[in-house]
Amino acid sequence: MKALVYHGPGKKSWEERPRPVIKDPADVIVRISKTTICGTDLHILKGDVPTVTEGRILGHEGVGVIEETGSGVSGFKKGDQVLISCITSCGKCTYCKKGMYSHCENGGWILGNLIDGTQAEYVRIPYADTSLYPVPPGSDEEALVMLSDILPTGFECGVLNGQVKPGDAVAIVGAGPVGLAALLTVQFYTPAVIIMIDMDDNRLSTAKVFGASNIINSKQEDPVKRVLELTGQKGVDVAIEAVGTPATFGLCESIIAPGGRIANIGVHGKPVELHMETLWDRNITITTRLVDTVTTPMLFKTVLSHKLNPKQLITHRFKLGDILKAYDTFGNAAKEHALKVILEQ
Amino acid sequence: MKALVYHGPGKKSWEERPRPVIKDPADVIVRISKTTICGTDLHILKGDVPTVTEGRILGHEGVGVIEETGSGVSGFKKGDQVLISCITSCGKCTYCKKGMYSHCENGGWILGNLIDGTQAEYVRIPYADTSLYPVPPGSDEEALVMLSDILPTGFECGVLNGQVKPGDAVAIVGAGPVGLAALLTVQFYTPAVIIMIDMDDNRLSTAKVFGASNIINSKQEDPVKRVLELTGQKGVDVAIEAVGTPATFGLCESIIAPGGRIANIGVHGKPVELHMETLWDRNITITTRLVDTVTTPMLFKTVLSHKLNPKQLITHRFKLGDILKAYDTFGNAAKEHALKVILEQ
Amino acid sequence: MKALVYHGPGKKSWEERPRPVIKDPADVIVRISKTTICGTDLHILKGDVPTVTEGRILGHEGVGVIEETGSGVSGFKKGDQVLISCITSCGKCTYCKKGMYSHCENGGWILGNLIDGTQAEYVRIPYADTSLYPVPPGSDEEALVMLSDILPTGFECGVLNGQVKPGDAVAIVGAGPVGLAALLTVQFYTPAVIIMIDMDDNRLSTAKVFGASNIINSKQEDPVKRVLELTGQKGVDVAIEAVGTPATFGLCESIIAPGGRIANIGVHGKPVELHMETLWDRNITITTRLVDTVTTPMLFKTVLSHKLNPKQLITHRFKLGDILKAYDTFGNAAKEHALKVILEQ
Amino acid sequence: MKALVYHGPGKKSWEERPRPVIKDPADVIVRISKTTICGTDLHILKGDVPTVTEGRILGHEGVGVIEETGSGVSGFKKGDQVLISCITSCGKCTYCKKGMYSHCENGGWILGNLIDGTQAEYVRIPYADTSLYPVPPGSDEEALVMLSDILPTGFECGVLNGQVKPGDAVAIVGAGPVGLAALLTVQFYTPAVIIMIDMDDNRLSTAKVFGASNIINSKQEDPVKRVLELTGQKGVDVAIEAVGTPATFGLCESIIAPGGRIANIGVHGKPVELHMETLWDRNITITTRLVDTVTTPMLFKTVLSHKLNPKQLITHRFKLGDILKAYDTFGNAAKEHALKVILEQ
Repeated sequence: MKALVYHGPGKKSWEERPRPVIKDPADVIVRISKTTICGTDLHILKGDVPTVTEGRILGHEGVGVIEETGSGVSGFKKGDQVLISCITSCGKCTYCKKGMYSHCENGGWILGNLIDGTQAEYVRIPYADTSLYPVPPGSDEEALVMLSDILPTGFECGVLNGQVKPGDAVAIVGAGPVGLAALLTVQFYTPAVIIMIDMDDNRLSTAKVFGASNIINSKQEDPVKRVLELTGQKGVDVAIEAVGTPATFGLCESIIAPGGRIANIGVHGKPVELHMETLWDRNITITTRLVDTVTTPMLFKTVLSHKLNPKQLITHRFKLGDILKAYDTFGNAAKEHALKVILEQ
Repeated sequence: MKALVYHGPGKKSWEERPRPVIKDPADVIVRISKTTICGTDLHILKGDVPTVTEGRILGHEGVGVIEETGSGVSGFKKGDQVLISCITSCGKCTYCKKGMYSHCENGGWILGNLIDGTQAEYVRIPYADTSLYPVPPGSDEEALVMLSDILPTGFECGVLNGQVKPGDAVAIVGAGPVGLAALLTVQFYTPAVIIMIDMDDNRLSTAKVFGASNIINSKQEDPVKRVLELTGQKGVDVAIEAVGTPATFGLCESIIAPGGRIANIGVHGKPVELHMETLWDRNITITTRLVDTVTTPMLFKTVLSHKLNPKQLITHRFKLGDILKAYDTFGNAAKEHALKVILEQ
Repeated sequence: MKALVYHGPGKKSWEERPRPVIKDPADVIVRISKTTICGTDLHILKGDVPTVTEGRILGHEGVGVIEETGSGVSGFKKGDQVLISCITSCGKCTYCKKGMYSHCENGGWILGNLIDGTQAEYVRIPYADTSLYPVPPGSDEEALVMLSDILPTGFECGVLNGQVKPGDAVAIVGAGPVGLAALLTVQFYTPAVIIMIDMDDNRLSTAKVFGASNIINSKQEDPVKRVLELTGQKGVDVAIEAVGTPATFGLCESIIAPGGRIANIGVHGKPVELHMETLWDRNITITTRLVDTVTTPMLFKTVLSHKLNPKQLITHRFKLGDILKAYDTFGNAAKEHALKVILEQ
Repeated sequence: MKALVYHGPGKKSWEERPRPVIKDPADVIVRISKTTICGTDLHILKGDVPTVTEGRILGHEGVGVIEETGSGVSGFKKGDQVLISCITSCGKCTYCKKGMYSHCENGGWILGNLIDGTQAEYVRIPYADTSLYPVPPGSDEEALVMLSDILPTGFECGVLNGQVKPGDAVAIVGAGPVGLAALLTVQFYTPAVIIMIDMDDNRLSTAKVFGASNIINSKQEDPVKRVLELTGQKGVDVAIEAVGTPATFGLCESIIAPGGRIANIGVHGKPVELHMETLWDRNITITTRLVDTVTTPMLFKTVLSHKLNPKQLITHRFKLGDILKAYDTFGNAAKEHALKVILEQ
């Protein structure tokens, strides 16, 4: 089969690889129908993710059809259409029993990281019974690909951890795909104010279309001053960090109201300065989280009932065989006005 | 009347001052029966708290008897024995209605800070109806003085924010009075393991008596290594920071298990380094809080039912007129083996 | 002044009464601008509410302007435009401190019940600082009248107690004003399915316009069968009872899914049969609640940000002097297609 | 092998039966070391549980050693010592993913009900990876048998659902084994008052020893009057129903304070009268639950750290072969002063 293979920092190729086979009774083999590229894949290609070794097939998102099942799989059979979760969950360990699948002792984020991933014609999925979701007949496959990672990430790490309530003032720092996923799902809880902060006017325009009540280009105006103006000098109840740098985290610290929550989504590469000398008495909460995909069933319901339209996040479509072109587009997101790309087999 | 007056960094005196008078219909005047000294008072005397100006009477804890009431006070009358909360709450503002009295727009921590405090023969208490608690007849006054500040601080900022559950592993970093208050109240929730970390053997012995399951002298052994040993290399579910330095906060970051909570109590004077490069995907929660004293009624019930014995925290007793001696003792806590001192009028 | 006075079961008149005066430092006198009639007022007129004695001025909802303030009132002054809460809260008692204003030891539902109410030119409001809300300049007064009682009742007793989550299936039994208030506010949490059940086609049509995904006329089809069909035979996650009869409560018992919540809003006059022989092992939760109006500030924000449009509930408008006509209309709600009426002075 | 077999109402025998065999890859066979008898087994023998058919081996509690594992089992191997949960959980279905194992679509309470149970020399356990718990070396087996059912039942259905908080007043109606299990575990949350109500003086004496602050023999005094006296006429914050009759449920309704929770544990055979005419405005919560055993890991930690001593519940010990005698004793619990019996192989 063909697959997108990582060959060390800066190097990848679309090449022939052996089709995966069942290794464990809980495995299934899925033929990929549609997949996508994640910002994390770009990080891997820069060499930023040391757990990914040369020769690894990338990708941790996708929808497909079951080709073969291990002897211990009871929930799926050949021919079933399935959504692949970016997080593999054994369903048995302490963390899985707590709903913290991200820290599954036997899984977690392993696809396209510790084991071969979904940017290929076929993929092996371990612990299939607890890591796949059946696709209801008649669903829109493209929409569901957004449920593999980006939407649960924005929702769980940003919105749920931020404990957003009706009437709240919320700021989302970063209008990339994950920030926009937080923007789409934060509206489940009807905040009064949703301020989107970024440095890219195109993404901010998209944010306005997606439901932001206010946008701030932090290259053009002081975001702290503007947020305070918009919130009667109080700051926001919830600040969602969707970038992953000391500066953007620091911005969240500067705009959070007493009693507020800073919910981090961004992947950080270095420490941030936490201003405890001003925050120690402000009754704030800071959370971090790797997505657990524990809300995938809930998100399914919101998609099927047309409360959430994930396809808004899709800007480009390619054949799976054109994945190198797709990487070029996604890698130049600002110039290409790219959010999420769909790769179809 | 006599009062303990702050005269700038390093300077204080026990001197004659005019007796306070009612200024607002919601005020009462309380004759102090018993008061105490807080670590914060020592900070003020070092000049660390710029809101406290010269001439201020210090003190924000105490029990006393109502001497006079303003015309708008309906819950108390002359002669009532009352507990004074360190936090003044107007009961009307947005924050008070949320139970976040610490950020009361008309009160908060003002006693012995923005207005004259309790280390005096008499004190004026604003918003008396919502800032005082009636003392049940027959109560032990000394015990109740511990409910003005130290116990709700340890309980709300440490234990409640840490969301301690039965069976949890908890570490408390800092075995001073507030760390010990957290230790006493964390046992309300029956954790399996309570590890107390400090550099003072005497305080650690006290911690053992107060219910710690394990003690670590971080001068003598590596606390990270030891905590990991004690928790099967997982780290603790809850780390309570009760010191207020970058090093002790950093220790909490190093010992927290995935999914865990770091509850800060310590008063910080400078930023801390938050290791988001390792914590971003560990699903942790960090909280800060100035005590709201919203749990004072709950703590009252635990004291009256003998579930909590606050008197354990009291090591020394003085006449109010000997307050300078009491400051000497409390200021040399390590040498004097002092925790809380009682000053009686 | 003129006022609507209760004279025993079935008897009321619009008559001259003395203008109210300040009795307590915490009182204010409000000149009513707009008020409305509640279903509870009809119950009173039937003689169903024994706490209401002859001579009582009815009414517990309204917006007005402050005419005079007691000496202890600090948050309001003459000329301020205010929203009157149906629940009077002293802000000081145990229940108020818990946010359970409905059970305030000095207040609760007293307006138009134990003390004279708002269906008059003027009304005395006790504990004004904690029982009134300032009306932001430029607000729509009619919309805000809906925040005195009907919207917080539907929201707190139905939606919040029902713990509605995104993607949930919700049934609301009863499409009268309070059921419709629950319908409007349940959408804050983005349920996937909202089934409205009533016997009046007109009200069901309104429910469809207000956002119900499905409507069931229980006179025309078996509501249990239909709800099970609509929910894949599982039942609903949340059933909101907005009628107050054994039959409608029983319906909720029949349609609730395992793990679901039955949130009662209805005012009941007799016991209901609780089928513990089938429910004991179904992991359900049943709640009752008299509105606390603790969410009024939150609802204000949703109205000001145009997330909630309370005016949808208003079907008729009258001059205050025509209140007897308004009672006729509201008392024949089905025939008149009446929901809420506005009375303007 | 030998097993205790149900032969229709009133009939049981200790007889020879074929040893169970692996039927599914997720199964294991366990050799029982210790088991016990549950009140539910007595209900079955009365013919009250129609799902139990003739020929069924009873029992749903126990500790044992794994004899054989199915090909899909990854968490256990032959020779492992295990605790058997009374609830079988597939770990895959919607309910299991929510932690509501009691309603597992493939399991739930099936042992000794829909499939053969643990009152036998060997038992087949389906979904072993998610339905068994490893026994830590050196544990006390007898203590752990109490974790199969009785302790999680008292804890989850009574204490957790009752949301007990430090300082609360709690009443437990019924001092049988499950009421006493609630009593032992409610102390995890340090209530101020724990009132135990029963009609058996012996059980009430035991309750006193186990930590009840007050006991009421409802045959000898009016329990409503006495509870109100003990709670300053307010009623209790939490009422735990551990009997399962209309009268005991009604007692809970009569003693619950405004804002309180009634947590039902009892197995009910008929409807109860719910006094909505008085409760509709009292802000109470009523919960029902079949134990999920989702807290078994938490309970393990409290046992291993000596915070909970389950052996207190054990009054009698028998050889497994003497199970008919054990049934006689347990069936005459009042006369025999029996709580839980241990059967050892």
